[in-house]
Amino acid sequence: MGDSTATVSGGDNNSSERNAAEEVCRIVEQSKELQESAATLISRNSQEEASLRQRALALDSSIKRLHSYIASSVKKGNLDPKDAEKLVEELTRASYTLSEGDAAAFLPSKSYGRFLKMFLGPINVHATRKDVQLKVKEEYNNFRDRTAYLFLFFPSLLLLLRSWVWNGCFPALPVQMYQAWLLFLYTGLALRENILRVNGSDIRPWWIYHHYCAMLMALISLTWEIERQPDCSQKQKGIQLFLKWAIMQGVAMLLQNRYQRQRLYTRIALGKARRMDVVWGETAGVEGQIWLLYPILFVLQAFEAYVGLLLLKTAVVGVVSEWQVVTCGVLLIIMAVGNFTNTVKTLVSKSRVKAKMKKGKSKNDLLQGSS
Amino acid sequence: MGDSTATVSGGDNNSSERNAAEEVCRIVEQSKELQESAATLISRNSQEEASLRQRALALDSSIKRLHSYIASSVKKGNLDPKDAEKLVEELTRASYTLSEGDAAAFLPSKSYGRFLKMFLGPINVHATRKDVQLKVKEEYNNFRDRTAYLFLFFPSLLLLLRSWVWNGCFPALPVQMYQAWLLFLYTGLALRENILRVNGSDIRPWWIYHHYCAMLMALISLTWEIERQPDCSQKQKGIQLFLKWAIMQGVAMLLQNRYQRQRLYTRIALGKARRMDVVWGETAGVEGQIWLLYPILFVLQAFEAYVGLLLLKTAVVGVVSEWQVVTCGVLLIIMAVGNFTNTVKTLVSKSRVKAKMKKGKSKNDLLQGSS
Repeated sequence: MGDSTATVSGGDNNSSERNAAEEVCRIVEQSKELQESAATLISRNSQEEASLRQRALALDSSIKRLHSYIASSVKKGNLDPKDAEKLVEELTRASYTLSEGDAAAFLPSKSYGRFLKMFLGPINVHATRKDVQLKVKEEYNNFRDRTAYLFLFFPSLLLLLRSWVWNGCFPALPVQMYQAWLLFLYTGLALRENILRVNGSDIRPWWIYHHYCAMLMALISLTWEIERQPDCSQKQKGIQLFLKWAIMQGVAMLLQNRYQRQRLYTRIALGKARRMDVVWGETAGVEGQIWLLYPILFVLQAFEAYVGLLLLKTAVVGVVSEWQVVTCGVLLIIMAVGNFTNTVKTLVSKSRVKAKMKKGKSKNDLLQGSS
Repeated sequence: MGDSTATVSGGDNNSSERNAAEEVCRIVEQSKELQESAATLISRNSQEEASLRQRALALDSSIKRLHSYIASSVKKGNLDPKDAEKLVEELTRASYTLSEGDAAAFLPSKSYGRFLKMFLGPINVHATRKDVQLKVKEEYNNFRDRTAYLFLFFPSLLLLLRSWVWNGCFPALPVQMYQAWLLFLYTGLALRENILRVNGSDIRPWWIYHHYCAMLMALISLTWEIERQPDCSQKQKGIQLFLKWAIMQGVAMLLQNRYQRQRLYTRIALGKARRMDVVWGETAGVEGQIWLLYPILFVLQAFEAYVGLLLLKTAVVGVVSEWQVVTCGVLLIIMAVGNFTNTVKTLVSKSRVKAKMKKGKSKNDLLQGSS
C-alpha cells in the first residue's frame, strides 16, 4: 500500500513536484489494478453463484421427486415400509443439509410480495450469509421484546393517567400519539416479517396479514374523533376496552417471545426447525408453558372478539355512530377469528405430530410436514 | 445431474428398492458436495472481498491525502499551479475509477441511519453490483413519476367533487384517505431515499428530512377533524389551500422528474456525475428548463409558506383552534424555508461552477466539489 508521507518531506520545488507526480502515477496505476481485481471478482462470482444456484435447484427438485416416488412405491407395495422409512430419513438429512447449510443461500428466495416492493422498491433484502440471516432474526426477536414492554407500558400509563389526572376522560393527543406509535410499530413488524420470509423464514402468512389488519386499524383509529365532555366516559368506552386488550396483548407477547425463543433453540438443537422460523403462538412440547400460554392466547382472542362486538354494539345503539367504530369492530373480529383458527390449526398439527411420535413414526411424519 | 425416471421404471420389488436406495445415496452425496462448494465459495469470497475493501479504503485515503498535499504545495509556492492542475486532473480520474467502477462496491457504504434501522432492522440493503444499484435508482425515478401523476390527480379530484357533488363541503372520509395515501407515499419515499443513500447516492440530506416533515404532517393531518356544517367552507379553507398547493407540487414534480433525468443522463455522458445522484430541484445547464423550473419551484415554496401562514392565522383568529392546525402551519413554513435555502444553495454552487468553467478551470473546481 502507498505511503505518501515521503512526498510531504520533499524539500525544494523540483523534488516536491517530482514526488507528487510519482505519487499520482502510482495512485492511477493502483486504481486501475483495483478496478480490474474488483471486476474479475464480481464476474467470477456471478458465474459461480449461477452454477451453484442451478445445482441447488436441481438437487431440491430431485429430492422432492424421490420423496413422492418412495411414497407411491410404498402404496403400490413395491417397497417395504421399513426400508422406505430409512431411505426417507436419509433424504430428509440431505434436504436439511441443502436448506440449512451454506447452499441454502443459493436456493431461490421466496418472492418479495407487493408489500415490500411498495415500500422499498426492488432492492435485495436476501442475505447470502447464514450468520447475517441469523442476526436479522435475532434482532427481530429483540425488537419484539422491546415492543412487548412498550405494549404493556403505554396503555397502562394512559389508563392510570385517565383515572388519576384526567378525571375519567382521555384527552385526544396522548391517545393519538399512542395510535401513531401502533401504526409505526405494525408497519415495522410487517416489513421485518416480510424480510424474514425472503430470508427463508416459515412464518405463517396469517401473522403477516394480521399485522396488515392491525396497521389498517391503527390508521383508522387515528381519524377517530376522541369524544370530549359531556358524557365522555360513556363515549370513550371503546378506547378503554381497546387499551385493556392491549395490556393483555403485551403480557401474551412477552410470554410468547420467551416461549418461542426457548422452543426455537430446543428445535434447533433437535435439528427439527429451520432457524428462520417465526411462529407466533405456535408451540411444541414445553409442557409447563403450554398450559399457561394457550389459555392466555384463547382468552386474549375471545377478549379481542368481545371488544370488536362491543364496538359494533355502540355503533348500532347509536352512542357513537362513526364509520371508524364499525370498521375497527369488524377488523378486531376478523383478527380474533383468524388468530383463533391459526392457533387451533397449530395445536392440531402439533398434537398429530405428538400422536405419531408416540407410534414411533416421528421422522416419517416430520418429513411429510416439511415436503 | 440426477435423473430418477430410471428408478420409476423399476419393475419388481427388489429392483425398485435397489434403484431407490441408489438414488438416495447419490442425492446424499450430491448434497454434501454442494454444501462443500457453497461453503468454499462463501469463505473465499469473504476473504477476497475483505482484501478488496482494504485496498479500496487505502486508495481512497491516499487520494484524499494527495489532494490536500498538492493544494498546500501550491499555496506554499512549492508547486507550479499549471502542473498541479494536471496532477489533480489525473487524480480525479483515478478517484472516478474508484468511485464509479466495480471497486465502488467495496468502498464502505454510508451509514444506515436510524430511520432504516427503525423500520427494517439491520438488514443489508447495499447492492454490490452496479447494475442492481442502477435498477434501484431507475425504479425510484419511475416511482416518483407515477407519484407525480397521482399528486396531480387526487387533489384535483377532491376539489372538483367538492364544487360539483359535495356542495362546497368536503366529507371527512375521502380527505382522510388522501391523507393516508400521503403518509404511505412519504414513508415510501423516505425509505427509498435512505436506501439510495446507502447505495452511494449523493442526495442532499435536506430532501430526506423534508420527507420526514411531510410524513409528520400527513400523520397529524389524519387526526385533524374535518369540520362539517355549519360554516364548513370557512373552516375547511385550510384543506382547500393545502389541496391547491398539492396540485402545484404535482406539476413541479413532473417537471423536476423530466428535467432531473435529462440532466442525469447528460452528466453521466459528461462523466461528471455519479450515477446514484438524486438531486431534487438541483439543476445544471439545460437552460430552457431552468427558466421554467426555477420560477415554478420558488413560486411553489412561496405558496407553501403562504399556506403555512394562513393556517397559523386561522388558529390565531380562532376559526379553528386545534393544535394540529398550528403544527401543520409551522411544519409547512419550515419545509418552505428549507426548500428555498437548499434550492438557492444549489443555484449558487451551480453558477459558481459555471463562472469558473468560463475561466477554463472547470476540472479543478469540479474536483474540489467532489473531495
